[in-house]
Amino acid sequence: MIGHLWLIGIGTGSLAHLTFEGRDALRKAAVILLPQKGPGKDDLAGIRTRLIRDSGSTARLVRFDYPERDPALPYQIRVSAWHDEIARRWQAALAERPPEGPVALLVWGDPSLYDSTMRIAARLDPAPVLRVVPGITAIQALTAAHAIPLNTVNGPVEITTGRRLRDHGWPAGAETLVVMLDGEAGFQHLDQDGFDIWWGAFLGMPEQITEHGRLRDVSTRIVERRAAARAEHGWIMDTYLLRRLPDGVPAV
Amino acid sequence: MIGHLWLIGIGTGSLAHLTFEGRDALRKAAVILLPQKGPGKDDLAGIRTRLIRDSGSTARLVRFDYPERDPALPYQIRVSAWHDEIARRWQAALAERPPEGPVALLVWGDPSLYDSTMRIAARLDPAPVLRVVPGITAIQALTAAHAIPLNTVNGPVEITTGRRLRDHGWPAGAETLVVMLDGEAGFQHLDQDGFDIWWGAFLGMPEQITEHGRLRDVSTRIVERRAAARAEHGWIMDTYLLRRLPDGVPAV
Repeated sequence: MIGHLWLIGIGTGSLAHLTFEGRDALRKAAVILLPQKGPGKDDLAGIRTRLIRDSGSTARLVRFDYPERDPALPYQIRVSAWHDEIARRWQAALAERPPEGPVALLVWGDPSLYDSTMRIAARLDPAPVLRVVPGITAIQALTAAHAIPLNTVNGPVEITTGRRLRDHGWPAGAETLVVMLDGEAGFQHLDQDGFDIWWGAFLGMPEQITEHGRLRDVSTRIVERRAAARAEHGWIMDTYLLRRLPDGVPAV
Repeated sequence: MIGHLWLIGIGTGSLAHLTFEGRDALRKAAVILLPQKGPGKDDLAGIRTRLIRDSGSTARLVRFDYPERDPALPYQIRVSAWHDEIARRWQAALAERPPEGPVALLVWGDPSLYDSTMRIAARLDPAPVLRVVPGITAIQALTAAHAIPLNTVNGPVEITTGRRLRDHGWPAGAETLVVMLDGEAGFQHLDQDGFDIWWGAFLGMPEQITEHGRLRDVSTRIVERRAAARAEHGWIMDTYLLRRLPDGVPAV
């Protein structure tokens, strides 16, 4: 039923971080599938619809509700069941009036990085022709906001999740670590003298806030600012970069 | 002398991968510093000037020559001396006629990822006000071209260089590895049955070529296509993603 499915990376959600390819894809899509806004998600829904308007798109907007994740299931099975259900809801939302052309979904950041949309799309039967439009990730918005390189000279970079940092600790051999999807400020549990942090929330938005320094000096302030900003806006998107200090070499 | 320095990520060099912020920065820059084209670099210089023209920029273009790197020096010292010399050349190129406003540099991909420009800018005295405009990286262009996720569900991702892969082998604990700046196809030296590869060159450009599969099946073809494309164009930019196979589980 969905012949062509376009996953459009919208970066931080502002027109400034949209690419020309992203703008053109929004304009050429016949239908845009949008998640129904829930409590506390008014801001996010507003950013999406403003971006669609600013892009000059005249696509038909079709809304669907996100299902709840079943907390009783083990993590991988819970995620998989949730993806199955979202794929069903996309199809149900389009059942009444089949799309007249390409169907688009807006994806925060880039569709390839810690996002489920591609895995949900893989469940559609028959399989649509998939097109991925890259977008600016939160990682790039973070390093741009701080005007810092992601890597040291010829150094490696590891990207991970808050869940992994919590379960496995600092990855062996890592020098630079970017942590995404961390709702619990896992940096608090690391050696507070051993790492520098560059943190940012609402990156690329007017509400953007950043902090950086030795963990010992800024951990508590980040946790407090994060809680205050979350209370104020009803939601938060944040990410951070950690750099392990060479033994005995003070930095920042 | 340089009051405001803007590092503008231009992604893959096409207007399609430029962001609106990038386009506006190109338009508002007073001066754009451009490396002088050398042998075999005509294509790259052409892409830059075409992008400047397509953006509607009317900035004054000031050219500088890249110095040679001294192969007699150890790696880190050689890189550092080279950065010093480039910073001197930027200033020399601007000495005759001081910039009337912000000075911009175009950076392939994103200024934060395996790029020297920010480190060179740090050598300027007096220090300019630095602005970083994020761009689409080769990593995002690669995953978009193949329409694949970068990470497995909740999985970590490591980014490294061809030099490191050559010197240190497969990083301990890595599952997904992106290799950049590899002129010597280091994937040939890995266990050819243990990894899947997604490779791309000239990503986001009309010349784009991609390959993917088990290393055993595609290694040789990638090496051959890479050499042929390099001979044809006089240069090549490529990158690849490797995914380690779980023991005994066939994939792709």
